[in-house]
Amino acid sequence: MSLDLPKKIEIIEVGPRDGLQNESKVLKTDDKVEFINRLILAGCKKIEVTSFVRKDKIPQMSDAEELFGKIGHHLNKGINLLGLVPNMKGLESADNCGVKEIAIFTSLSDTFNQKNINSTINESLITLEKVAKEAQKNNIKIRGYISTVFGCPYEGQSSNKKLLEVLVELISFGAYEISLGDTIGAANPGQLTKIIELLSEKVDLSKIALHFHDTRGMALVNVFRAMQLGITKFDSSAGGIGGCPYAKGATGNLATEDLVYFSNSLGVNTGIDLQKLTIASGFILDKLEKKSQSKVFNALKANPF
Amino acid sequence: MSLDLPKKIEIIEVGPRDGLQNESKVLKTDDKVEFINRLILAGCKKIEVTSFVRKDKIPQMSDAEELFGKIGHHLNKGINLLGLVPNMKGLESADNCGVKEIAIFTSLSDTFNQKNINSTINESLITLEKVAKEAQKNNIKIRGYISTVFGCPYEGQSSNKKLLEVLVELISFGAYEISLGDTIGAANPGQLTKIIELLSEKVDLSKIALHFHDTRGMALVNVFRAMQLGITKFDSSAGGIGGCPYAKGATGNLATEDLVYFSNSLGVNTGIDLQKLTIASGFILDKLEKKSQSKVFNALKANPF
Repeated sequence: MSLDLPKKIEIIEVGPRDGLQNESKVLKTDDKVEFINRLILAGCKKIEVTSFVRKDKIPQMSDAEELFGKIGHHLNKGINLLGLVPNMKGLESADNCGVKEIAIFTSLSDTFNQKNINSTINESLITLEKVAKEAQKNNIKIRGYISTVFGCPYEGQSSNKKLLEVLVELISFGAYEISLGDTIGAANPGQLTKIIELLSEKVDLSKIALHFHDTRGMALVNVFRAMQLGITKFDSSAGGIGGCPYAKGATGNLATEDLVYFSNSLGVNTGIDLQKLTIASGFILDKLEKKSQSKVFNALKANPF
Repeated sequence: MSLDLPKKIEIIEVGPRDGLQNESKVLKTDDKVEFINRLILAGCKKIEVTSFVRKDKIPQMSDAEELFGKIGHHLNKGINLLGLVPNMKGLESADNCGVKEIAIFTSLSDTFNQKNINSTINESLITLEKVAKEAQKNNIKIRGYISTVFGCPYEGQSSNKKLLEVLVELISFGAYEISLGDTIGAANPGQLTKIIELLSEKVDLSKIALHFHDTRGMALVNVFRAMQLGITKFDSSAGGIGGCPYAKGATGNLATEDLVYFSNSLGVNTGIDLQKLTIASGFILDKLEKKSQSKVFNALKANPF
């Protein structure tokens, strides 16, 4: 019974933005720069580096301009550095910094959207359409995020019909890739199979990335199933930084270490060096004064054999 | 693309023996009794409860006779209580206690065997054949364990030819079921597929159980793959107790919570109540003064939604 796995996958490293944004300790810009430099040394080629948001709202991201000024030179070496942009003001800042690709964000839950970005799904889509049009005028690429695809902490199960609507809309805005987020780590291979089969009828699956949380230890099982279904793009966070904003003490983002080890063991190429990656993660975990929840990171640290 | 999963699986709970044996804090017999009683309340029907070994060698298991005296009554209610037996002396003690099923143990690595039970594989098979013959005279059932099937901490990769030889031998001794152990958490779905396909040519797969360690977070991926390949019996440890004897701080046994949550989410029946299980695990983790490394246990404890 064949495994039917892809020869390689693309990993989108989200630690510096999605990871750090969910960490309470605000880090120095130079530490973030060092983290990103080390991620690039480890082979990361597509990194979500910051968020162009109101400085008073998310202190961890208040240094977006300064940070981008110190890492933007990597763009010349073919490294893809993404900035999250919630609105026109964010786009203006990103564009001024020389950002070449932005991430835009909505969800499948009005409650979640209200709490996160103070607007309904439909209101957020109106904003994102404007942002996307303006971005494309300035030759900025667009990656879309849809959160709560596999369940919402407030509304429970999400609607697959709604998912298809929002997905098609983001693609029509010009997004070349959409990342589907398992915000609360509730996905399972059965549900995932149904969703991917549904999407495959309307959308080219090469446009789909998956963003799993490991809250209940299911992230790699879902990655495995997604690979069997033909998905080859996955978001993850170095060292698993980020935590779970909905359950203190629980795990959030899938750790990049777990994803790379898993892929290596299956002969699926990621282009990322596991040892160098743990050096990058170890550096930032030290700065956060935090232990990793990645089993692979901890096993490598224990260095048993 | 169908998931092809079984409707139900059998979980063999190994926390009270394999789990506790790898914990340094020696517990009171009554705490172990309470733990086992709570596991049974949670729906566990097959539990490895103790080991009939030299008292001075493994202090945590030195109360095997007393413990069995206090839990043996569960046998009358159809609960299967296994005792590990390394030799004829152990079998005699087990039989005197009224044990109805024993586990016998070897590995695929002479170095591992020497360090664990002070004998080569061939020497251990000679002992186990005697134990098995005598056990069957007394109507005691036999479950076999083979360790280091997916890799050895001392010898690296194991030989699949050797696996087949040892497996066939244990079955010829009368073992009705053989549990293949991923002692260092090195298994991956590709390797697993090859091994199961090889075994399926010689052995009825219903005789095979799998015992995964989650050292590198791969246990559930391996369970998922094993289910796709038709395996329906899995060992796990409540709360993930046991640690990894080869890497301090790293994870050992797959946690029963993770296995039950995973199975539930796929509609695969286990007969175990997850909430009641975490009560059993929480009780023994408190006694061990230890935190669980099970993501599901920790997520349920954080109780977010």
